[in-house]
Amino acid sequence: MIVEIISVGTELLLGNIVNTNTKYLAEKCALLGYSMYFQTVVGDNVQRLEEVLSTAMSRADIIITTGGLGPTKDDLTKEVIALVLEKKLILDEATVIKINSYFNGAKNIPESNYKQAMIIEDSIVLENDNGTAPGLIAESQGKSIIMLPGPPNEMIPLFDSKVKPYLMEKSKDIIYSVMVKLSGIGESLAAQIIDDLIENQTNPTIAPYAKTNEVHLRITAKAENEIKSKELIKPLLNEVQNRLGKYIFTINEEENLEDVLVNLLKQHNLTCSTVESCTGGLLAGRIVNVPGSSEVFKEGYITYSNESKIKILNIESEILKEFGAVSKEIAELMAKNCVLISGTDIGIATTGIAGPDGGSIEKPIGLVYIACSIKGKVFVEQYNFKGNREKIRSYTVAKAIDLMRKLILQEY
Amino acid sequence: MIVEIISVGTELLLGNIVNTNTKYLAEKCALLGYSMYFQTVVGDNVQRLEEVLSTAMSRADIIITTGGLGPTKDDLTKEVIALVLEKKLILDEATVIKINSYFNGAKNIPESNYKQAMIIEDSIVLENDNGTAPGLIAESQGKSIIMLPGPPNEMIPLFDSKVKPYLMEKSKDIIYSVMVKLSGIGESLAAQIIDDLIENQTNPTIAPYAKTNEVHLRITAKAENEIKSKELIKPLLNEVQNRLGKYIFTINEEENLEDVLVNLLKQHNLTCSTVESCTGGLLAGRIVNVPGSSEVFKEGYITYSNESKIKILNIESEILKEFGAVSKEIAELMAKNCVLISGTDIGIATTGIAGPDGGSIEKPIGLVYIACSIKGKVFVEQYNFKGNREKIRSYTVAKAIDLMRKLILQEY
Repeated sequence: MIVEIISVGTELLLGNIVNTNTKYLAEKCALLGYSMYFQTVVGDNVQRLEEVLSTAMSRADIIITTGGLGPTKDDLTKEVIALVLEKKLILDEATVIKINSYFNGAKNIPESNYKQAMIIEDSIVLENDNGTAPGLIAESQGKSIIMLPGPPNEMIPLFDSKVKPYLMEKSKDIIYSVMVKLSGIGESLAAQIIDDLIENQTNPTIAPYAKTNEVHLRITAKAENEIKSKELIKPLLNEVQNRLGKYIFTINEEENLEDVLVNLLKQHNLTCSTVESCTGGLLAGRIVNVPGSSEVFKEGYITYSNESKIKILNIESEILKEFGAVSKEIAELMAKNCVLISGTDIGIATTGIAGPDGGSIEKPIGLVYIACSIKGKVFVEQYNFKGNREKIRSYTVAKAIDLMRKLILQEY
Repeated sequence: MIVEIISVGTELLLGNIVNTNTKYLAEKCALLGYSMYFQTVVGDNVQRLEEVLSTAMSRADIIITTGGLGPTKDDLTKEVIALVLEKKLILDEATVIKINSYFNGAKNIPESNYKQAMIIEDSIVLENDNGTAPGLIAESQGKSIIMLPGPPNEMIPLFDSKVKPYLMEKSKDIIYSVMVKLSGIGESLAAQIIDDLIENQTNPTIAPYAKTNEVHLRITAKAENEIKSKELIKPLLNEVQNRLGKYIFTINEEENLEDVLVNLLKQHNLTCSTVESCTGGLLAGRIVNVPGSSEVFKEGYITYSNESKIKILNIESEILKEFGAVSKEIAELMAKNCVLISGTDIGIATTGIAGPDGGSIEKPIGLVYIACSIKGKVFVEQYNFKGNREKIRSYTVAKAIDLMRKLILQEY
């Protein structure tokens, strides 16, 4: 069964708000086993809304609209749908009572509010507990048009409580998916390694997504129940694990790289600390993002100036002068001394040139050293990142977390 | 002139990501004086992409696509557009060189990467500084099709640097806008204070946007040239400044709160340092985001554990025990000692309960103290933020930067 989403609202066309409704509905519909091929945004305009609706009717079984159910003249989703379906609008007494009670017996309820009590004849009314405009489901010619209000705090509860059960009953299949997350490999190389699997996908399907320093592969199967979906996924997942295993850090969709790191540290009863120059706190900030990271992350130092590297990390000014702050030698010392002053098991250090200034021919913008001290050994990696200041810094953070993760796996 | 946006990507149809690209582009196009009537999302599928493109070609002057320019077989935006325009794809030598340099002379560059160097004949190549897939502009039958990569960190700089000037040249009216940025006031209160200005807007228009701890008011005028636009804006801007002046921290769209802070520090020849508990490095990370911040930001400490507060900040363990790490007293000591150990002019400290665990009746999740030591005085603010861990931490960072900014203005 094919579902299509139509978002109605000028504020979307003007870019005043981001379309979170569509993301929410698309995700839910996918999980319910529906296919979706198109999503459209259109303004509060009769002719254009009619055009979009007719097109959607020609290619989908179920159409979900959001927005345009309110009390103002601009709101005309219901009116246009009635027109397209050649149905009448009639007054719904139950909604009139609801509107009256919503205004809590006030005398002068603006007349326009009763526009919201007009429903398409023979439609299912979806009572809205968080606003005055009810949702509607109109069925015609074997198709369903589901009308939901635009504000997410009305749309989401209405979808969850009323539309989801309706869609579950209509759908035969269940969709189940696994997200395989990789680091240390680019999207193109990962895709090349599983090229034949992508090429021959039917059910399950497999799709790669590029993230900062990560590649995610979503494997999705459709079957009559979850057990059968999982069975369908298993051989493809195994094959992906065989080919890309060393890059996979999790197959749990909810888990990020920093979650994996914090869990690994907990498992091995290890603590860590950070010393940051170019990342200026973002590395620690990302580790501390993980709830409960206080068990393993103890302290961090942002040694941004040369003086702070000398004072906090006891790095000799001659050495700093000789090699420069952005060097393998200084990165090594930063990580080594980080462990010494913090007393943690692992110390990680970053130093680099994030730009836009400060680059030279020998040390160009994007040159970054990441050092990790673990079990008395210090490992240093050198990178030449491309991109702007923000990108260089976020790549450095991602690489640093991944380096710690890999070294823990290797050393413990 | 009418512009239409087509987003290409299965991850949008599956609801894996929210379509922030379209919001960004829609907002920018509106500011450039373009009209927009439709936005469409379609998957990586030749037939459906062709259908959507042909429809868009029939009703818009300019079509902007995002996504589908990458190296994998899934990526077929360029290929389908070439098909629709009946143009050939040819190899762009300059992009080949760029791809080679991007991979930094590596031997085994996956062959698929060179797919990104295939361009539509006679098209304008938009060099991408943050990725390997260039953007393209193909002109045909009086229409322009602008192809941009999907990742926002590539799409946004490419739009700003290459597409915006192109669109400005095509548009007849000049749109000029000023962004008034406020902190320390909520959106609804700000909107209420200028309610009559919003109500009576025509040209210039005024629109409020809520951001984390900030409200932005965009004042936009449309006229035949920039001087006339600026003249139109002036009286409304003056009125807004009269009414909301004390909340305004900049009217420069490019300037963020941290830019304003770093500029203020430079102006007054001041240095600062940070001590962070709940924000765990994010505060320093945001200050260091500003290019050239090394002149004023010297060092930072992430004292996440109690031991680190004792060891690094010399806070007595009895005092820590008596008041608890999240308290006015400890925040005060953190800021005070921050200045002592770092030798900077200003020290800022954060401590709070970001959740999801660690809350109690006396100290609930969201309780945050921010302290700032400046000119020998220490100022402390207490907040009770609502929301999840991420939200509490980012609000704390925003409030801390704003506190420093306000205190510098007050004390110097």
